[in-house]
Amino acid sequence: MGDFPLSPDNAAPFNRTDVPHMKWWGWGVDGVSFSYANMPAFAPFIKKVVGLDLETRVAGQAPSFDDLEVPPSRIDDDLVKALTEVAGADNVLTTAHERVLHTFGKSVRDLMRMRAGDFGRVPDVVVYPGSEAEVAAVVTMAAQRDFVVIPFGGGSNISGSLEPQAAEERVVVSLDMGRLHRLLDIDTDSGLARVEAGVRGPDLEAQLAETGWTLGHFPDSFTHSTLGGWVATRSSGMQSDKYGDIADITKGLRVARPDGILALRPLPSTSTGPSLREMILGSEGRLGVITEVTIQVHRKPEAREVRAYLFKTWEHGVAAMRAITQNGLPVTLTRVSDAVETSFSFATSKGSSGVEAMVKNGLMKYLKAKGWDLENIALSFVGYEGSSRQIGAIRKAVGRIVKANEGISIGTGPGALYDQKKFDTPYIRDFLLDRGSAADVSETAAPWSKLVTMHDEVVKAAHAALRQAGVQGAIMSHLSHSYRSGACLYFTFAFVEDGNPTIEKYDVVKRAIQQTFIEVGGTPSHHHAIGVEHAPWLEDVLSPSGYGVVAGLLESADPGRHLNPGKIVTTK
Amino acid sequence: MGDFPLSPDNAAPFNRTDVPHMKWWGWGVDGVSFSYANMPAFAPFIKKVVGLDLETRVAGQAPSFDDLEVPPSRIDDDLVKALTEVAGADNVLTTAHERVLHTFGKSVRDLMRMRAGDFGRVPDVVVYPGSEAEVAAVVTMAAQRDFVVIPFGGGSNISGSLEPQAAEERVVVSLDMGRLHRLLDIDTDSGLARVEAGVRGPDLEAQLAETGWTLGHFPDSFTHSTLGGWVATRSSGMQSDKYGDIADITKGLRVARPDGILALRPLPSTSTGPSLREMILGSEGRLGVITEVTIQVHRKPEAREVRAYLFKTWEHGVAAMRAITQNGLPVTLTRVSDAVETSFSFATSKGSSGVEAMVKNGLMKYLKAKGWDLENIALSFVGYEGSSRQIGAIRKAVGRIVKANEGISIGTGPGALYDQKKFDTPYIRDFLLDRGSAADVSETAAPWSKLVTMHDEVVKAAHAALRQAGVQGAIMSHLSHSYRSGACLYFTFAFVEDGNPTIEKYDVVKRAIQQTFIEVGGTPSHHHAIGVEHAPWLEDVLSPSGYGVVAGLLESADPGRHLNPGKIVTTK
Repeated sequence: MGDFPLSPDNAAPFNRTDVPHMKWWGWGVDGVSFSYANMPAFAPFIKKVVGLDLETRVAGQAPSFDDLEVPPSRIDDDLVKALTEVAGADNVLTTAHERVLHTFGKSVRDLMRMRAGDFGRVPDVVVYPGSEAEVAAVVTMAAQRDFVVIPFGGGSNISGSLEPQAAEERVVVSLDMGRLHRLLDIDTDSGLARVEAGVRGPDLEAQLAETGWTLGHFPDSFTHSTLGGWVATRSSGMQSDKYGDIADITKGLRVARPDGILALRPLPSTSTGPSLREMILGSEGRLGVITEVTIQVHRKPEAREVRAYLFKTWEHGVAAMRAITQNGLPVTLTRVSDAVETSFSFATSKGSSGVEAMVKNGLMKYLKAKGWDLENIALSFVGYEGSSRQIGAIRKAVGRIVKANEGISIGTGPGALYDQKKFDTPYIRDFLLDRGSAADVSETAAPWSKLVTMHDEVVKAAHAALRQAGVQGAIMSHLSHSYRSGACLYFTFAFVEDGNPTIEKYDVVKRAIQQTFIEVGGTPSHHHAIGVEHAPWLEDVLSPSGYGVVAGLLESADPGRHLNPGKIVTTK
Repeated sequence: MGDFPLSPDNAAPFNRTDVPHMKWWGWGVDGVSFSYANMPAFAPFIKKVVGLDLETRVAGQAPSFDDLEVPPSRIDDDLVKALTEVAGADNVLTTAHERVLHTFGKSVRDLMRMRAGDFGRVPDVVVYPGSEAEVAAVVTMAAQRDFVVIPFGGGSNISGSLEPQAAEERVVVSLDMGRLHRLLDIDTDSGLARVEAGVRGPDLEAQLAETGWTLGHFPDSFTHSTLGGWVATRSSGMQSDKYGDIADITKGLRVARPDGILALRPLPSTSTGPSLREMILGSEGRLGVITEVTIQVHRKPEAREVRAYLFKTWEHGVAAMRAITQNGLPVTLTRVSDAVETSFSFATSKGSSGVEAMVKNGLMKYLKAKGWDLENIALSFVGYEGSSRQIGAIRKAVGRIVKANEGISIGTGPGALYDQKKFDTPYIRDFLLDRGSAADVSETAAPWSKLVTMHDEVVKAAHAALRQAGVQGAIMSHLSHSYRSGACLYFTFAFVEDGNPTIEKYDVVKRAIQQTFIEVGGTPSHHHAIGVEHAPWLEDVLSPSGYGVVAGLLESADPGRHLNPGKIVTTK
């Protein structure tokens, strides 16, 4: 009833070699990288704020795979044979390149270690299953033969959720889910699509678009990350204000566990004890391997636009975003950058962009005349979808709130630009690393009442940490993902060292930021998961008793520790 | 920042004797009961549909407490003394009346057993703690002295979540949370209120209303149930379309566990592994005793109204409710009754009510002329809140959808009546029991695509079961609580026997309905919890592997089985 039949195309074979991978040493696909060729304000900004002189600090040589010393695989022929019987010889690989590709995610810590050839425990074999049955067979075999399974989606994780434990003595199997990429069906009455977990963002949206649907889930990693990865890490997309976090979007689940398939039918809501669905969400492979997800999909909107606004201060912008959300205005995205990030946005604008043009045409003069401190202004984006008439009505209501908070609209030009380049930011990290600077992100969420304090305290703590580490650097932030009770604050920080940036200095800054999240009343992560990177702050946010409950869940669900052990709860 | 200070009033002492209780033998407070004095159509409806002749079948005598044989308390003086040291002598009771009051919830099974004096295991002592610290002390003592703690809110549960296990040999302590009733503070910027868990619905709304706030959570049990009970059973209120289920509303939690207070700060969203918040929700006391909840509250709306609509068939109404929800119209409630329940609504209308008047003024004639089958029409309610202007705009958009689905508006008269009597329905069960008829409810949720099939199959299964049981009876239903992907279907069934209705016959019907929920793709409960009543269907909806994960969670979190053992997962 209301089901959409399989299109013949997506039932075609999808082989291991069809599964795309990012560069082993950095973000994105080979041949694509960040360039500031058309950004005249970029180099001066980086020099002033981060202290990196792009004229004198030239890029080092690209890392060479041949220079790496990759620890040998510990798998024996017998297990290779058994895995081959399940998945086929083409889909069981022990080459150094495949194993390295599946060792890390893409945190700046991972990137630094990868470039340095600093391997801990590398998976011994990579398996590309072609069906849920093959996944289930490998997971069952893990318990029988006592090896470890780590599911791998797009490899974009930045919380250390993928790397095997350093002291792991058993064989480690990385299960690359990329071949499981099909949209299986759509229940059109209910807007529920059943999809294999290994599908990447663009492939999923393309399959949905064939019949006019969209998921509307666009995390920064969208082009490279997978549905299963989103669920396993509690991802949130840029348009979560409308479409919800992946936790809201996920209605049904299938998970391969050693004792069989855990299957949760799609339900709009249910009162059946502690939520098993909400245990699988964020479980990072520790409860099993997610093979299929039933997701809430939407009809593609008639029109969409992202409109930019300027506020006198970031605090004014925050107040406006809060009013928009708490008045129930159905916008798709709310975002407001602090003064430093606003300068960064201007600095990464191309010469012909809306913002640049506005600067030229005297907007800034006008604002100065109004008494604004131009060093302190905040750039904001609000997203709209629907019919032109609906968009018009919502925009008008937003306009009233913006005006009440002393902001002004600067049109859709900068918004269109933001929309175009929204997936490009992660490439900058590699660009900077090439030049001796480390940049990374930390993000949190907290109630509205704490957000301004959170921002100020985190900035203060980061600067103190940079001083303590003896490095020059910067931190900038934006608010995004608004909810009635609060929002996400997303911080980007960077520093420069004389030689290559070191993990020791990085840790000083990262830890100071994360610790402040806890102290002010936030979470160690709004949408990047725990992994091992954020594990030191999990007990703080769950309380010791609560931490014990989660640890007990993970231990009782996997007493043999075959399922990505050591992640989330590291003490067990 | 933005905090609302305590009002002096709610900090006043709230003693055990201030805690209200329902009748030991039935719903609601003493002296209030259902009467059909002003409902001329009621007796004919009951005769026709349920087969009960209210003219000949007169009420039996009210149950007398003195006739009961209450099993003696098994507590020893030493433990009474220890509990008294914690909570004070006034708040530790072993009287038969207190113990009986805390033995059952209010399912029809409970009511039948209570009237029959059919006790299993009655709690040995009732404790009324006056603070979180006292709750914590009792819970810690439970582990140290090996007794069982069962938290008690308003006692309105209908899933058997409150009764001790029949074979329990240890002392059973019922922890009545009613003294913990205070609104502690409101973070006005974030709309977050911190509230003690034992507060009843009306008391909570009154405390919030003092400064213009509302929770907006109105389950049928609202007048008698508590915040902690709502959280522990995953309750849903009539206006969940706007305010969300209690699972959405609950942002922060404090739970007393044997190893200390489990504390979750309020967060708008978080990516920190399996959701501990979503484990406490629905945990029915098995993970600890909820002492405090931080809830999302809203400014009281300027205006509200409930408008009634008629549809040609229930299926037309369902299609309209789906369109309203999937078009994102911000209504507060959607509800549409099937033909039998529509007749019931008409039959319980008072002589002067809107519906009755309409019948008289020829509306039905008009509809008949339009070709409607009057035996088949469906009564629907849609709720609106906001400014008059907002309500007007939403009502207009709803009107278009209603029209497109061949429905008509019949104004706000029946809606106002629905609003007035919305908490009265449970009283009818006692009225019927007095006269030899058992009535109860079963509810589920499922995707939109399955709702019509679900309705038809459940009705068919119930009638088959009634035949099989050899009794006359009826079943009726409404859709309510709409979500983008589906909705709740709420069934009420009743049957009559020659003598008193028996649990054996009841079980035949109840089981047939619940089994059909599973087979068609629904949940065993949308908002009434599992307890022991729905436990036989939990494994079906979680799958065997998933059931094992939940069982493992409960066991690892309470290895000594001190926390309401045997609920939800009965095999462990």
